[in-house]
Order: sequence, then structure tokens, then C-alpha cells
Amino acid sequence: MQVESRLAQLGLVLPAPPPAAGKYAPTVAAHGLLFISGQLPLAQGRLTSPGRVGLELSEADGGAAARLAALNVLAQIQAALHGFERLISLLRVDGYVASAPGWTDQPRVLDSASQLFIDALGDKGRHARTAFAVPQLPLNASIELVVTAAVVP
Amino acid sequence: MQVESRLAQLGLVLPAPPPAAGKYAPTVAAHGLLFISGQLPLAQGRLTSPGRVGLELSEADGGAAARLAALNVLAQIQAALHGFERLISLLRVDGYVASAPGWTDQPRVLDSASQLFIDALGDKGRHARTAFAVPQLPLNASIELVVTAAVVP
Amino acid sequence: MQVESRLAQLGLVLPAPPPAAGKYAPTVAAHGLLFISGQLPLAQGRLTSPGRVGLELSEADGGAAARLAALNVLAQIQAALHGFERLISLLRVDGYVASAPGWTDQPRVLDSASQLFIDALGDKGRHARTAFAVPQLPLNASIELVVTAAVVP
Repeated sequence: MQVESRLAQLGLVLPAPPPAAGKYAPTVAAHGLLFISGQLPLAQGRLTSPGRVGLELSEADGGAAARLAALNVLAQIQAALHGFERLISLLRVDGYVASAPGWTDQPRVLDSASQLFIDALGDKGRHARTAFAVPQLPLNASIELVVTAAVVP
Repeated sequence: MQVESRLAQLGLVLPAPPPAAGKYAPTVAAHGLLFISGQLPLAQGRLTSPGRVGLELSEADGGAAARLAALNVLAQIQAALHGFERLISLLRVDGYVASAPGWTDQPRVLDSASQLFIDALGDKGRHARTAFAVPQLPLNASIELVVTAAVVP
Repeated sequence: MQVESRLAQLGLVLPAPPPAAGKYAPTVAAHGLLFISGQLPLAQGRLTSPGRVGLELSEADGGAAARLAALNVLAQIQAALHGFERLISLLRVDGYVASAPGWTDQPRVLDSASQLFIDALGDKGRHARTAFAVPQLPLNASIELVVTAAVVP
């Protein structure tokens, strides 16, 4: 099934890809690799769920934020490739979770992003992943996702 | 010399590659690159040496944990490539050390991992590296290694 | 315009590329990708501006440190490729800023590095970027830049 059909079936509408927050490009590609700048849980240009999981935010809040950041990753891919046909697969997902001191269940929160990738992209959503616990993120975001993907050169 | 012979000569037995801790794959490959999910100091599914170097752990503890995480990286490569013949070389090693506030000798601890890569892989163990000091890691691990390698496509 | 002419016009002289701080290589290349080990704000082997932005350091200090780390990135590329002719473009820049608790304007500080890349490299300086706020960095550095570039294989 095509990615667009999957998204429709899931009732998901991709947001406009967030513009860069500085002097860089949202995505850059070379040699069949697409590098996507770090994506935050932004909706219509506003950060949702600022703060730290385990303190200001619950695990469910963190999961929803991870899902929103993942939607922005998909929006960036769609914009860079003018669709998903040239996407071969995700490769590497680095997931940063702003975390209360001593709270260490970051993988569970990031599973909300991983599940969305798999649901939306099917086999193309397969990825290696690393979870990180950080005390804070830029703009006080709760989640940041850094994704590299393989594309048809 | 072949990697398997080197490992035997070093008295090293690779562990079973740890399964993913969530909805992702331990490794993903494309375009001659192998992306390995973050590896922790796990032995038989149990985390060794939890905590922070410079606080709960000594530098020697941290070095031993780095070495164990590096063994898990090798185990993942072996499983992904069915051996080491298709490995061209390691490329990028990101080393995260859970650290006491103000303790800044992360490169020394990570050298235990780098040395293991060089000893086990010879020229194929050459890598660029970045050291990070983090207040905590998922599951309260002391070390996390994120490795990208070049493989025969 | 050639990169060397641009640098001269900007009045910039690239430093000697800093040696590795441990058992790794400053750069490793494969399959048209150049991986550069994390670069710090080192000048003549000495760390400038140690500490955290928003605490021991101002945003202007942080920007100057980011610029110096970026110069070291350029020096590593020049050394690895014997010039810039084989550089296709930067791809991914991960920028780590040692930050006071609650200070979240990392993108602004990292723009000093991004601007230098664009000024020095022109179109080749285009890059995806991710900003990180960390409580400390190895050697008590204020900035660390991790860069991947596309090169002619």
C-alpha cells in the first residue's frame, strides 16, 4: 500500500513541514541518504508539551509529543522527496527525551514515534534507534527526533 | 588476520546480540552503510555497572562497561553481516558516558571501547569518535555506544 | 569562487587540525561520506571559553566558541581531502551547547557556526542541523560540533 493511502487510513494528515529554526536547511541529501534536521513537537509553529517527562509531563504526554515530532519527520521527508515514492526506508532514529532526574523509561516514550513510523511507512518504516535522556532541549521541547533515511539517488 | 581469529587470540567470545528494547530493529543497512542501534553494557540481558562515572562508578568501572558495550556492537555487526567479511570498517562512534557533574574525562573511559575495536578488527576498527557527558542514560546505563559502519553493499 | 579564496576574503586562516583526544581518527571516509570526530573550540591545543552558556559564558562567548569549533571542522576537512575540491557539501551538523539549566536559545548560538560554514563554503556549506542543550561536555568545553559531509568518492 502507498504511504499516502496508509496515512489516510490512519486518519493522519501531515502538517506543513516546520521551517528551520536558524541558518540551516530542514533536509539535505547526497549519495542516496537524506539527513533531516532535528524535529520537535511543533504544531502550526507552536511547541506542544514543553517540559520534562516524569516532572511537568506524564509518559502519555511524552508519547503524544514523540508522535507529533514523528509526524513532522514525515512532513519533512514528503517535502524533500515530493512524496514517498523515492523513500527506500528510514535508517537511523535518534530520540531525545527531556527527562526528570532518575526517570529512565525513555524507550517506552519513543515507541510512540517508532510505532507511527511503522504504521505510516510499513516496511519502509523499519529503523535502528537510540534513546537518550536529556535534562533539557532547545526551546524547552520535550522530544527531539533526528532521522536519517535511505532514498533512491 | 581474520576477525574471528583475532577475537579467539584475545580470549574474547562475542555475546548474543541484545534484542531491541522497543519497536525498532537492532541494525538497518542501506547503500553500504550499517546503522547499529545504541548499545548498552548488557550481559545476558542484564545491565552491568548502572550509574554515573565519577559518582557511583570509578573510571575503571566505566572502562569495563565501555568494553562490554563495544562487544555488543561487534555482536550486532556479526549478526547483521553473518560474520565480519563484509565489514569494510567502522566509521562513526558516538560514545555517551553517564557522568558526575564536573567530571570531564569521558575520552579516557571511551578509549577502552576504541581499543577493543582496534584490537578485534585491526584496520577495520579505525573510526571517528565523539565523546559526550550525560547526566543519565536510558535504563540507568553508564555507557551507550552508537556506531555506523561501512559494509560491502 | 574557491573555498580558499573565500577564506582569504573573510580574513580567515584555518588552524592546524586538532589531533584526536584518544584512540580514534580525526576523520574516516567511505562510500562518499566523510565522518569528522567531534570538534571543540580549541586554538593551538588549548580550549577557549570553557563553561556553560547562560552561566559562566554569555551568548556572544558561545557564538565565538561555535565559530572556532567550526573552523576546526573546516581544518579537518581540508586535511582529510587535501583541500576542498573533493568536498560536495556538508550534510549533517549536530551542535552541542553546554548550557545553564533553563537556558534554551541554543539555535541562536549555533547560528555562528552555520553562518561560518555558509560564508566559507558557499553552496557547499548547506547543512541539516540539530541543536542540543547539555549540562557539560568533555574537557569542560562549551561547544561540540559533529559533522558529516558528502565527498567525491
